[in-house]
Order: sequence, then structure tokens, then C-alpha cells
Amino acid sequence: MNTDIKKFIINQSLALDCGKIIKGFPLAYETYGTLNEKKSNAILVFHALTGDQFVTNINPITKREGWWAFAVGPGKAIDTNKYFVICANVLGGCMGSFGPKEINPETDKIFRTTFPIITIKDIVSSQKFLLDHLGIKKLLAVVGGSMGGMQVLQFVSLFPNMAHSAIPIACSASHSAQNIALNELGRQAIMADPNWKNESLTPDKGLAVARMAAHITYLSKAGLQEKFGRKLQDKGSLKFSFDADFQIESYLRYQGENFVDRFDANSYLYITRAMDYFDLEKQFNGNLSLAFKNTKSKFCVISFSSDWLYPTSENKEIVIALNACGANVGFVEINSDKGHDSFLLNVPKFLKTLSDFIKSTYDEVNNEKGI
Amino acid sequence: MNTDIKKFIINQSLALDCGKIIKGFPLAYETYGTLNEKKSNAILVFHALTGDQFVTNINPITKREGWWAFAVGPGKAIDTNKYFVICANVLGGCMGSFGPKEINPETDKIFRTTFPIITIKDIVSSQKFLLDHLGIKKLLAVVGGSMGGMQVLQFVSLFPNMAHSAIPIACSASHSAQNIALNELGRQAIMADPNWKNESLTPDKGLAVARMAAHITYLSKAGLQEKFGRKLQDKGSLKFSFDADFQIESYLRYQGENFVDRFDANSYLYITRAMDYFDLEKQFNGNLSLAFKNTKSKFCVISFSSDWLYPTSENKEIVIALNACGANVGFVEINSDKGHDSFLLNVPKFLKTLSDFIKSTYDEVNNEKGI
Repeated sequence: MNTDIKKFIINQSLALDCGKIIKGFPLAYETYGTLNEKKSNAILVFHALTGDQFVTNINPITKREGWWAFAVGPGKAIDTNKYFVICANVLGGCMGSFGPKEINPETDKIFRTTFPIITIKDIVSSQKFLLDHLGIKKLLAVVGGSMGGMQVLQFVSLFPNMAHSAIPIACSASHSAQNIALNELGRQAIMADPNWKNESLTPDKGLAVARMAAHITYLSKAGLQEKFGRKLQDKGSLKFSFDADFQIESYLRYQGENFVDRFDANSYLYITRAMDYFDLEKQFNGNLSLAFKNTKSKFCVISFSSDWLYPTSENKEIVIALNACGANVGFVEINSDKGHDSFLLNVPKFLKTLSDFIKSTYDEVNNEKGI
Repeated sequence: MNTDIKKFIINQSLALDCGKIIKGFPLAYETYGTLNEKKSNAILVFHALTGDQFVTNINPITKREGWWAFAVGPGKAIDTNKYFVICANVLGGCMGSFGPKEINPETDKIFRTTFPIITIKDIVSSQKFLLDHLGIKKLLAVVGGSMGGMQVLQFVSLFPNMAHSAIPIACSASHSAQNIALNELGRQAIMADPNWKNESLTPDKGLAVARMAAHITYLSKAGLQEKFGRKLQDKGSLKFSFDADFQIESYLRYQGENFVDRFDANSYLYITRAMDYFDLEKQFNGNLSLAFKNTKSKFCVISFSSDWLYPTSENKEIVIALNACGANVGFVEINSDKGHDSFLLNVPKFLKTLSDFIKSTYDEVNNEKGI
């Protein structure tokens, strides 16, 4: 086990949606900043499909910058001089939390596809144990983009009185047919790789193809055109071969190859499955506003204009449901040509929106409790 | 050789864009309807990436309906009682034309990736020999969707006086970065399959993944949501496995599996490469309108509102370039939620547009020549 990975062992039982019960399982997590005395400055960040607990600073495993370094850190939108930031690797993940890469103590073999299917609800429920362990009764905020946003929605629905504010970003309350299709494409690419069935090999080629497919969906058509257009890799003429002629081809190949070093193919299967199964509306018999009817949280729903994976229209469905139950909700669509990826990038208006909203919650909480 | 495949052997030399010269190569083609005495009722149809010469009726190889059965046939928009329809399998294809599936006479082995890289220009040039062979000096119309539309544009540019009218549908004058990326994804899926390098095997799994990826792009998000949504394959509850839970998953798997029976993986590589290399603007030093400056054709450019692969904006670029050189051009955006696939489906307004435009050209041509 890598000593850079901090783990909390959950000794309580967790009944998963699939019917299995798990107990004594690890949750890997990180914290940034300092929890204040009142324990009123904690923000729970949920990561997306291929993210992990290493939100900011240098990720000790990959040696690259954390996935939300633009947003989280000293003086950043989520200011770690002021707030205490917690992020756990999701159940089913591959950065130390209980997932298909871990060893099944009953068989002494790696779980692989014998790991139980998990859901967004399971992921969120497991993190409640961590909050209890840290002694946090109420969070200042829960925040996350993409699959992280789904966890935000699930969290406030499960624990309506546990977060002062909630910020679901670039997400949806139920996975669309197109998004299920795109995830299935990735899974099929992995399962098509003959190495996938071989216990001593890894399906790197299949996983790379899955990543390439996903990566295309994270960017907008206009953004790709602006950044790559038809620029050639070598400045000369076309190669008349299947080598990478265009810069976009090299870029995608690089994204694919790079990904396999840091991600487990089976985790990819399990986490995409959790996303596909996410349907908060269905949990409440088709009435999404019932998911939020007891919520005490203040919401800020954020979407990006060029995000075609979780378009503004799907984010607005969340706003409509929150309005329908009288919740306190704000909505911002950020103009950006960076597509779904916008939430991970330096998009100033987005970062300002995030910063201002969290600050206003912090001030409100402090005034209530301090004066 | 399958006797249902009609072939014309081109004995002239064709200098390909890649620098190689080919000679004595087959072009498989079909015709529908009867060529009139004046030879003034011929329409050349160009097929798209995975299409073939079997435009309508039952395809004798696949035993399924031709890919444009909605549009072509007796009494259809392209009425074979009235018009003489010609369609050739593209160079690089796998339905009888010279392509990577054919045997290299020099080595007596299947070409596979030793086949020369071909371009849209090569594809179109090869079909000019077929027209000469059929004794057709001027076509009533050239028409095609998607890659077929690119061929329309290339044809009128190469042969400005050979078609009374031209109908590029749901296409682009140069392949966008996103579309190159999507094609590269398909190629990587094929090349990731270890069978691809094995002469006695076929990379069915890789090709199926490529097809699944492409198929998602042919449909719109709204169309997928409307047709599939989150409908389950079996009416009961979720399976908590990686089996196909959702109908969209089964549908995609079916599309993938089905495709490998009828398509050659190397043809897929070559034809997608031809699409990626297509850049009519670059052929004219960045000024697209120069591509059309000598054109005598009347144009009808057609796009579909929900097509995100070749969106209306890219089709409009063609219209703008045609306007800039004073060409006779009409433009129609058809409202449809069926995405890029709309041109292959029963979309009444589209079929009426097609029918009316061709009929008006026919009437004009007949009046000119007949009275």
C-alpha cells in the first residue's frame, strides 16, 4: 500500500443498493486547510468519473497537479486558508478506496468484476461515515461537477439538513440516453480488449480507446475547432498513412495512453455504471422535487453554455425541481467554449461564481452562529 | 466473386493524391431506372462512409433494404420511373470496388493496409471513368449526404460543367477537428484489436466498437432521449451487472455486431481517412468560393436542425462560398430530431425538398432541350 494514501476504515455495515452488505472497507481521503473550532468551515468536494481525492497540490501518485487546482487552494475560489476541504476517493474507485482493484479478503484475489455493483447513493452513503469520523455535523457546502454534481444532489436528498449550501455543477438528476450510450461505448471498448479477461494483464488499449471517446465528449465542437482545427502534427504535408497527421489525433492518443497509467479499467466499468444507474427522479417515483422537499440547503446550480454532455437544459431541470419545492436556489449558466471540461479549467466567471456563493454562505453561517 | 456485384474495370490510369498510380482496377456499381435517349435523366448518387452501390431494393449481399430506400425508387423523391440513378461503391470500399479487401495482383495477397491511401478527390475521379463508360456527358444531378455530400462538392469543383444540379446534404467542405477526432477514435478501436494484425482473423470487436461510437454521433441527444430514454431492456428492475440493462445499450451492441458482418475493418480505416483529409478550401488556397467559380450547376444545400456531426453552420459555409462566386444556390434547413441520420430516414419535408428540386431541374433541362 502506498503510504501517501490516507485511508479511513469504515467498520459499520453499509447495505448497498444491489443488496450486498459491505463492512470494514477502506475509504481513501484527503483534507486541505484547517477545520475551525466550531467545525463550521468544512466543504465536502465530490470528484468526477476519473478524479480522485487529490483535489489540489501535486498528486503524490501521478506526480501531476490535482484535478481542481484552479479552484481549490490558498486564495483560490475554494480558499483553503479559510475553508477545510474534504475529498474522498469514491467507492469503486482506484485510488485507495474500496474498489475492484482491491483484494477480496475472502479469496485473497483482486476483486476485478466480482466487486459488487455500486451506485451514486452507495458512494454518498459511504462518505457520511467519514464525516461522522471527522466529527462534522453540518457542512458549509457540498460541491462537485459532473458525477460530483450527481453526488451533491444525492447527498442533499439523503441528508437534507447536513449542508448549508449545495453546488451541483454541470450535471443531471438522471443520466440521459446519450450519456448511457457514451458510457456503454467506453465499457465495450474495455471489454473488447482480450487482456481484460486475463488476470495478469491490463486492458490498456481498450481503456485508452474508452478514454479517447470520453475525452471528445468533454470538449465542445467549437473549442476543438479553435484549439486544433485541421492543424498538422508535422508542419509539412499530409503523410498519406494512418499515423497521426492532425494535432487532434496526437492529442487524443496522448490522452488515451496517459490515462492507463493512472486508472484501473474495472473501476472505469463500475463508476460509469454508477453514473448510468443514477436517476434521482426515479428514487422519488418520478417527482424530482420530492427529492429536495426537506432540504435546508441553499443551492447554486451552475452549467456551461457549450457543455453538450450535461447541457444547460438538464441542469435547469434541477432548478425547476428545486423551485417546485420552494427551495432557495440560484442558477448560473457560464459562457464558455470549453465544453463540459469548463468546470476543471480556469474559467474566471465560473470561479468567481463559486467563490462568491461559498463566501456568502460562510458569512451567513458565521453571523448566525457568531453574533 | 459474387455474381450479384456488377463491376466495371477501369483501364485508364488514375494518379492518386498520394502519388501512386492505379490502373486496371474495378469499380462496382448499380443503376436503377432507364437512361432516356437523350441521356439527360441521369442522377449520380454518392454514398456515405458505410453505404454502398445498393441504394434501393434489397441489397443482394446483406439481404436488407438499400440504404436510401426511403428516397430512391419508383414514385419516390428520386423517382426511378423517371430518372436513371447510378451509384458506385467508393474506391477503398468493400462491396466490389478496388479497396483493401481486394487481392493485390502483384503479391497475390489481400491488400489490407498496403492499399494506397485514397482521398475524396480520388473517389470522385474514379467515378468519372464510369460516367464516360456509360456515355453520360452531363448529369441531371449529383446528390449525396454526409461523405456523399463531400463527393458532390468535389465533383462540381472538378467538373464544373458536368451536372445541371448539385445537392450536398448534411456535409461540410472540410472535416472539422471534432469529426477527425471521432474518426480517429474509430480507427484506434480497430487497430487496438489484436486480430487486426492477424491476416487470417478479422478485428470484429474493434470494428463493432468503432461502429457503436459512430452510431451515437448519427443520432441527436433529443432523439435518443425520445426513443430510448432510460427504458430498461427487461421490464423488471436493474440487473446490477454489466449486462445490457438499458434498451440503448442493447441497441448499440446490436448495431456493432451487425456491422461487422457487412463491412471490412480496413475499408473503415481508409474511408474515414479520406473524410479526414477532405478540405476543399485548402485545395483552393483557403478560398472555398474559388472551388465553385466555374460551376454551371444549380445548388440545393440541405442541413438538418439536430445534426451535430455536420451542423447547419458548416453547411451554411458552403452556401456562403457559393454565394460569393455568384452561383445559383438555395439552402434548406430541415427541422428534425433524428440527427445526422435524418438524410437516411423518412423525413417528409426533406424528401419533398429533394423531389421538388430535382423535378424543377428536370423540367428546366427538358424545356431547354426539348422545345
